[in-house]
Amino acid sequence: MFEKNMKLAYLLDFYVDLLDEHSQEIMRAYYEDDLSLAEIAASVGISRQGIRHVIKKCEEQILFYEEKLGLAERQAEINKAVDLLNRLSPSDEDSSILGEAVKILEKGV
Amino acid sequence: MFEKNMKLAYLLDFYVDLLDEHSQEIMRAYYEDDLSLAEIAASVGISRQGIRHVIKKCEEQILFYEEKLGLAERQAEINKAVDLLNRLSPSDEDSSILGEAVKILEKGV
Repeated sequence: MFEKNMKLAYLLDFYVDLLDEHSQEIMRAYYEDDLSLAEIAASVGISRQGIRHVIKKCEEQILFYEEKLGLAERQAEINKAVDLLNRLSPSDEDSSILGEAVKILEKGV
Repeated sequence: MFEKNMKLAYLLDFYVDLLDEHSQEIMRAYYEDDLSLAEIAASVGISRQGIRHVIKKCEEQILFYEEKLGLAERQAEINKAVDLLNRLSPSDEDSSILGEAVKILEKGV
């Protein structure tokens, strides 16, 4: 049984750049383009078992990165801060400063 | 010539958790406790050359992480947003919401 992990799909976005090119291609095909193992195997030219192995290894790497760096968790915190800031009713004078700060924060981790 | 790189000292803080325990010990001794290669070698029990090799390897790793993830750069952006927020003059009602948002942001990446 090999199940697609939706948490992984979310975390991939944060850490995909740390993977080598070959792994990026496979992980994107699997998690973003939603291809099957057999489809990816055919396209990349390695066995279905090989693809499964790469995905498993990358998943472990990504979970390790999130455990150590917590970027996804941190992004959730920043989103919370932005939600709070969006509840403010600034004066005209403050409005553009606040807008600038929110713009910076919305660029994401 | 082996020079201590102050940018590295700063970046280390963001990525130290990604290093293995042995490397963490050596990098902290070198960059945080400011020990010499010879002092670290004596304390860890490997050659000065071995220490130099570990430091070099970790520096490359850390520069790779920053190039790919840009956490230090991102933290500088968030600091900029916090500076902007600290310039606001919120109403009493907004003041506690703003304070909560700033508190979240100040926790750091």
